[in-house]
Amino acid sequence: DQPFFVMTGPCVIESRDLCLEIADRLVDLRESTGVKFIFKASFDKANRTSIHSFRGPGLEKGLRILKDLREHTGLSVMTDVHEPSQAAPCGEAVDLLQIPAFLCRQTDLLAACAETGKPVSVKKGQFVSPAEMANVVGKLQESGTKKILLCERGSFFGYNRLVNDMGAIADMQSLGYPVIFDATHSTQMPGGLGNSSAGAREKAPILAKAAVAAGANALFIEIHPRPDEALCDSACMMPLEWVEDTVKKCRDIFSLIRS
Amino acid sequence: DQPFFVMTGPCVIESRDLCLEIADRLVDLRESTGVKFIFKASFDKANRTSIHSFRGPGLEKGLRILKDLREHTGLSVMTDVHEPSQAAPCGEAVDLLQIPAFLCRQTDLLAACAETGKPVSVKKGQFVSPAEMANVVGKLQESGTKKILLCERGSFFGYNRLVNDMGAIADMQSLGYPVIFDATHSTQMPGGLGNSSAGAREKAPILAKAAVAAGANALFIEIHPRPDEALCDSACMMPLEWVEDTVKKCRDIFSLIRS
Amino acid sequence: DQPFFVMTGPCVIESRDLCLEIADRLVDLRESTGVKFIFKASFDKANRTSIHSFRGPGLEKGLRILKDLREHTGLSVMTDVHEPSQAAPCGEAVDLLQIPAFLCRQTDLLAACAETGKPVSVKKGQFVSPAEMANVVGKLQESGTKKILLCERGSFFGYNRLVNDMGAIADMQSLGYPVIFDATHSTQMPGGLGNSSAGAREKAPILAKAAVAAGANALFIEIHPRPDEALCDSACMMPLEWVEDTVKKCRDIFSLIRS
Amino acid sequence: DQPFFVMTGPCVIESRDLCLEIADRLVDLRESTGVKFIFKASFDKANRTSIHSFRGPGLEKGLRILKDLREHTGLSVMTDVHEPSQAAPCGEAVDLLQIPAFLCRQTDLLAACAETGKPVSVKKGQFVSPAEMANVVGKLQESGTKKILLCERGSFFGYNRLVNDMGAIADMQSLGYPVIFDATHSTQMPGGLGNSSAGAREKAPILAKAAVAAGANALFIEIHPRPDEALCDSACMMPLEWVEDTVKKCRDIFSLIRS
Repeated sequence: DQPFFVMTGPCVIESRDLCLEIADRLVDLRESTGVKFIFKASFDKANRTSIHSFRGPGLEKGLRILKDLREHTGLSVMTDVHEPSQAAPCGEAVDLLQIPAFLCRQTDLLAACAETGKPVSVKKGQFVSPAEMANVVGKLQESGTKKILLCERGSFFGYNRLVNDMGAIADMQSLGYPVIFDATHSTQMPGGLGNSSAGAREKAPILAKAAVAAGANALFIEIHPRPDEALCDSACMMPLEWVEDTVKKCRDIFSLIRS
Repeated sequence: DQPFFVMTGPCVIESRDLCLEIADRLVDLRESTGVKFIFKASFDKANRTSIHSFRGPGLEKGLRILKDLREHTGLSVMTDVHEPSQAAPCGEAVDLLQIPAFLCRQTDLLAACAETGKPVSVKKGQFVSPAEMANVVGKLQESGTKKILLCERGSFFGYNRLVNDMGAIADMQSLGYPVIFDATHSTQMPGGLGNSSAGAREKAPILAKAAVAAGANALFIEIHPRPDEALCDSACMMPLEWVEDTVKKCRDIFSLIRS
Repeated sequence: DQPFFVMTGPCVIESRDLCLEIADRLVDLRESTGVKFIFKASFDKANRTSIHSFRGPGLEKGLRILKDLREHTGLSVMTDVHEPSQAAPCGEAVDLLQIPAFLCRQTDLLAACAETGKPVSVKKGQFVSPAEMANVVGKLQESGTKKILLCERGSFFGYNRLVNDMGAIADMQSLGYPVIFDATHSTQMPGGLGNSSAGAREKAPILAKAAVAAGANALFIEIHPRPDEALCDSACMMPLEWVEDTVKKCRDIFSLIRS
Repeated sequence: DQPFFVMTGPCVIESRDLCLEIADRLVDLRESTGVKFIFKASFDKANRTSIHSFRGPGLEKGLRILKDLREHTGLSVMTDVHEPSQAAPCGEAVDLLQIPAFLCRQTDLLAACAETGKPVSVKKGQFVSPAEMANVVGKLQESGTKKILLCERGSFFGYNRLVNDMGAIADMQSLGYPVIFDATHSTQMPGGLGNSSAGAREKAPILAKAAVAAGANALFIEIHPRPDEALCDSACMMPLEWVEDTVKKCRDIFSLIRS
């Protein structure tokens, strides 16, 4: 019976300053909401829509920023892993590894992350059924870990649009592990702006509440103090000032449905 | 700021006795939950999977049962309308008319229902986007009514499966009318059993909670005291004994997200 | 081993003159291509996107025009039926009845059409799997007819878009009846223009060829001499001058794959 | 105006003997059909459904077999690349590199393949619209190559099922490069057998003909002399004895629609 928690942060490590600005706010929110936050940011975005998109500071510099931030704020930190060779250094630097949705079936990547001993959160691919996540879980377990989390971030629903099957949260929980709901990427409209993804950030709080009411164990929310200036996924990023209300409502729904 | 309410009943009027058994239970639940119930049952099922499926008692006998039931219990009653010629007699007998999803674009049917002066609830077709419901609303308004309700009951998601776009509830509400969530038909697997639809009734309470957390104004739930014996939609019918907990949880989520 | 044939015409009976203009051209094409044409036009469009859309001349006047046209040109004629009460008069006037996709599960409509003794072509609903068409076929057979045709016109593929499962043609043929491919409605983008459907008419010849190569027995193509002026489905209507090449190519593919 | 050609082979390099058995047959077919074949087989399957699935002989041994086979038969050879570090050795050994569908947006992988100077064929992800392939093409072009091919292998169509949008072939061709149709993976039912993918190999010849009629420039077909014994994708592998008829029919449709 783990308590409700929230993975959150600015998609990509745009700068040390931005990360600290956000993390400081999360420290305040931890106080005001009583909810645990895990700080998430990517050191590299390996599959941006366009080759000209900003990718991040890279592995070495990115992990240094995350470690500093953890020391500075006491927050747990997490990051994405895109290739097997990145798993070991990431596993040393952060508290939780995340596998992107497109890569959720890449056997070597799953195995390398599992072998770090750190918890691994896998996003369900937009092309994968909840039942197929049994095979993802199997690959991680056979590679020696039981610290597994699964994440719902939307399924393909015709071109340029995703949909969340809220019933799939329970289906994935039946595999024996907690299920996180990614409220911001679920609002993505892939390729919707031609050379970048569109989004509908005003839907993120709605979907977050729905997913927690459907039983999700935790939330994943990408946030930014100035979303329109965000260097990645701007269209679906949640403004920092929406977070407190969303988290409080979801925390209360979480308790209500378990009462 | 209408309070939370629930449309519910046994899919089809199997018998006067079954309707009374269920309605009596709803009267009790009205007491224990403080929630308003509208009794729903169909006098005819005009698009069953198989021609051999049970269809109901027909218009005349069906409406008589619904009127008796209203007198007996004080519950409001509603029923489905399948052809323009049925609108007037239904409008005289019941408190609310419902247009089935497959028929949501049939102009004459919408107009005939609007002209009764009774509120009309239209199920969004499984093949219709939320934005297209603006045209359905337009047809009703031009036919002289503003007593309109819209209902989400799932969109086609590959063969034999539906999915609910929980963000679509807000999109439909932006048309200016309340949105009902049909928790039981949303779990249908059309044609999943060959000559009848399969379903996943255990998902109905989950989806109900998610939809209310996403802002739905009311619920539609088909119920049966002995679902496995139900003569229609057995696989997705909610057992009578689940209703109280589902309604209470949804009632509380309804209040929580509006607080 | 029926030869290749084509159902075609102007969606709705805009006027007697338009119908004759198109039918005269079909008589020429019958000569130049050696292919049989069945003239199709609707007397009423019962589910237009908007209540303000043009609907047609109505049952009586529409059937009179179709009968005249048959006499004048020797072409077989067909039309849509939307309510059980229309089946008998249509059955007397035309050579083939067609059931619209949204109505493909309406039991009474299927039965009434079957009882006319005329062949009945049913469009597969955008929300129906090919296997479920076994139940549609069952309803027709139990109502006393074996003159059945099925028609593929696209499945829902996310909001405002359809997709054709070309493998479904063979699945429906395995039910024992010929399968028609509707090349123009398959390009529809329902609701894509807000108060009317968008379309992609340039895709119609491509999809027609693909469907015939996948084994379709015949084509359904809506045509217009001046598509941009068409009063219905303008965006997906095929210009009259494309028909000859499309029909010849499809006729040759039809033979090639059966050789 | 490139002539019709076919990429084909046994999914994974099960053994040198199997590859030679198939390649010898392709040499015969080249004679009997006049069509150019490119031999395809993977040295590693990096995203099998289960961690226990057979993966192949690995990079070094696999590339050696492919080079031998090319020398022995005169066939061009191609293989999959899964990580940027594999691009250079593959580029030296084979005539064409292929990027798997799940990885079609991985920027570094695209760039590494482009930099080999060998033609690169990219499978459209099951979660990607045809228009988004402009960004994939952009990444390759910016990395210095114009030897690009795109491949349609199905889009997600509800859980455990794919569908081919045959109109998407023309949309992708409008990006300026030839479009291949993958006839066998398009019949996959991902996860349909629990711990492996199901398939419908009898649909492969049907879809191949449809795609060529829709304008596809070439085919991709995985084949096996004894499909039920295949170590990978057995359910959708085409039996060797079906290839000749399928290729001849498709070759003739290819000519017919260009005449």
